[in-house]
Amino acid sequence: MNASIVALVEGVLAGDRRSMARAISMVEDGDPGLEELSRELFPRAGRAATVGLTGSPGVGKSSLAACLVGAARDRGQTVAVLAIDPTSPFSGGALLGDRLRMQAHATDPGVFIRSMATRGHLGGMALAAPEAIRILDASGKDLVVVETVGVGQAEVEVATATDTTLVVVSPGWGDAVQVAKAGILEIADVFVVNKADREGADEAVRDLNLMIRMGPETDWTPPVVRTSAATGEGVDELWDAIERHRAHQETTGTLARKRHRRVLEEVEGMVAERLRARAAAALDGPEGADLAAGLTARRIDPYAAAAALAERVATAAEVRVGGTDG
Amino acid sequence: MNASIVALVEGVLAGDRRSMARAISMVEDGDPGLEELSRELFPRAGRAATVGLTGSPGVGKSSLAACLVGAARDRGQTVAVLAIDPTSPFSGGALLGDRLRMQAHATDPGVFIRSMATRGHLGGMALAAPEAIRILDASGKDLVVVETVGVGQAEVEVATATDTTLVVVSPGWGDAVQVAKAGILEIADVFVVNKADREGADEAVRDLNLMIRMGPETDWTPPVVRTSAATGEGVDELWDAIERHRAHQETTGTLARKRHRRVLEEVEGMVAERLRARAAAALDGPEGADLAAGLTARRIDPYAAAAALAERVATAAEVRVGGTDG
Repeated sequence: MNASIVALVEGVLAGDRRSMARAISMVEDGDPGLEELSRELFPRAGRAATVGLTGSPGVGKSSLAACLVGAARDRGQTVAVLAIDPTSPFSGGALLGDRLRMQAHATDPGVFIRSMATRGHLGGMALAAPEAIRILDASGKDLVVVETVGVGQAEVEVATATDTTLVVVSPGWGDAVQVAKAGILEIADVFVVNKADREGADEAVRDLNLMIRMGPETDWTPPVVRTSAATGEGVDELWDAIERHRAHQETTGTLARKRHRRVLEEVEGMVAERLRARAAAALDGPEGADLAAGLTARRIDPYAAAAALAERVATAAEVRVGGTDG
Repeated sequence: MNASIVALVEGVLAGDRRSMARAISMVEDGDPGLEELSRELFPRAGRAATVGLTGSPGVGKSSLAACLVGAARDRGQTVAVLAIDPTSPFSGGALLGDRLRMQAHATDPGVFIRSMATRGHLGGMALAAPEAIRILDASGKDLVVVETVGVGQAEVEVATATDTTLVVVSPGWGDAVQVAKAGILEIADVFVVNKADREGADEAVRDLNLMIRMGPETDWTPPVVRTSAATGEGVDELWDAIERHRAHQETTGTLARKRHRRVLEEVEGMVAERLRARAAAALDGPEGADLAAGLTARRIDPYAAAAALAERVATAAEVRVGGTDG
C-alpha cells in the first residue's frame, strides 16, 4: 500500500483534523487514491450515529446543524458536520459566509466541520456522500450530521443515506402542502418546524400532523418538533426525538436492515458509474463519432446507440477478462 | 412492429390526446414497448421549442406555466406542459389540486397538460424527462414547457434538458443568496422574480443582477424579469426574453451544440442504467448473497464488491455476445 495512504488512514483513525480534511478533499476530487483509502477505513466505520438534514434553501438548516453540534457537545459527544454543496462555481463564497455561525465551534477539538463539493467525483453526490460519511465515522466521531443545500431527488438520496432524516420547514418558506409537493413527506423520520417564533408556525405544525395522519400507517410516526435556531428553543426536544428514533430502529432491527440496503445500493451505483465512464470514453473515441453524428442527424435513435455502446463496453470488458485469464 | 405501437405512433404524430397520454404513461411505467415507440418518434422530434421551469416549491412555477400557456395561445402557438412529480405516494392529490388553475386551458385543443411521476422508469427523472419531451415534441406542439417541483441536482438536470431554462424565485421564498446556495444561478437563461407585487421584489431583482455581474462573463447575460402570475404582469416581457434567448442560441449555434451534448449524455445514462440493472440482478441472485453478507460483516468493502460485480456483469455480457456471434 502507498505509504502516504497508510499515513492518511492512521491520521483519520486518530481523528486528526488535517488528515480528515485531506481525505474529504480526495472524495471531492475523485482522487485515484480514494479506493485504497476507503478499503482501509470501511471495516472501521459503522459506529457513529448519522443524521441528515433536508429542506428548501432558506429554512435554516445550517443554523439548525449548529444547534445540533451544541446539543451533542453539551452531552459530551463528539460531532462532525458535512455540508454538501451543489457543484457551483458561484456558491462557494455564499456558503462559506453562511457557515460563519458555525465558527463558534471551529476551535473545539470535539467538532469537525466541512463543506464538500462534488466536482471531481464521477458518481456525484449520491456516491460521494456515503464515502465522506464513512471517513467521519471512522475518525471516531459519535455523531455525523449531513446537511444538503437544495431539496430534490439527489438531495433526498443524500439525506436518507443517514440513520435519521430530518425534514426542515419554516413558516416563511411555505406550508406542509409544499413538503408533500416536494415528495419529502415520506422520507422524514422527524419533522422540524424551524423559525417557530414566526407567524404561521402553528399552521405548519397542524398541517404536517394532518398529513402524517393521512399517510400510510407505519411502526414509527414522525414527531413534529418546533425549533428556533436563533434562540435555541426546541433543540433539546429535537435531540430527544432523534434519540427516540434511533432507539426505535435498534429495537425493531430497522437500523441494520436500512444500513444493509444502503450499502447494496451504493455498490450498484458504483458498478453503474464504472461502466458509464467506459461508455463515455467509447462515445468520445473515434468509434463513438459515428454514433454521435448519427444521433444528431436522427439516423440512429438513443436506444439503438445505447445498445451499441453497451455492447462495446461489454466487449472491452471481455477483452480485459480474456487477457487476465490467459 | 407491434400493431398497437404502430397505432400509438400514428396517434402521437397526429397530436391525438389519448395517444399522447398513453405514451407518457408508458414512460412513467418504464413499459417494455417504450423502446419501440421512442425509436419511431425520435426522427420526428426536434422541431418544438422547449422551456424548463425550476425553483423552490412555493415560488409559483405552476401558475407561471399557466401564464406561458396563455401567452403561447395568444400568439397562435400550440403548447404542451409536462409537470414532473417526485416519486411520492403522497403528492398525487396535492399536485392535482394545484393544477386546477390549469383547467382554464383543459378544453383547448391546442393545449396538452400532463403531470408525470417516474415510479417505474429505471433511469429516474433524468432519463424519463427527455423521452416524454420527445413525445410532446413529435406530437407537433410548437412549445413544450417542463416544470419540476423541487430544486435539486436531479431537478436542475431536468430543467436544463430544455433549450431555455427559467429559474423562478419569489420575494417570500428567499433572496438571490439562496439561489446561489442552491447552485442554480449559473443554469438560468432567464431569471423570473414572480409574485413581483410582494414586498422584497425590488431587492430580489437588484441582488440577482448583482450576482450576474459578479459571475463569469458569457455571451448571453440572463435577463431578470418581474412577473405576477396572479395579474399577468410581466408575462409578455418574459415571453420576449425567452424568444430573444432562442434567437441568440440559433445565431451563435449554441442550440445545436446544446442539443447534441444532451443526447450524448442521455445515451451514456441509458448505458449506465442497462448495466446497473444487470448489477442489481446479479446482487439479488444466489451468487450476490455472498457479496451482500460480506458487505454487512464489513469483510468486503464496497469497492471490492463493485469490482467483482462489474466483472460478473461484463462476463454475462460476454456470454451473450458469444452466443449471438457464433
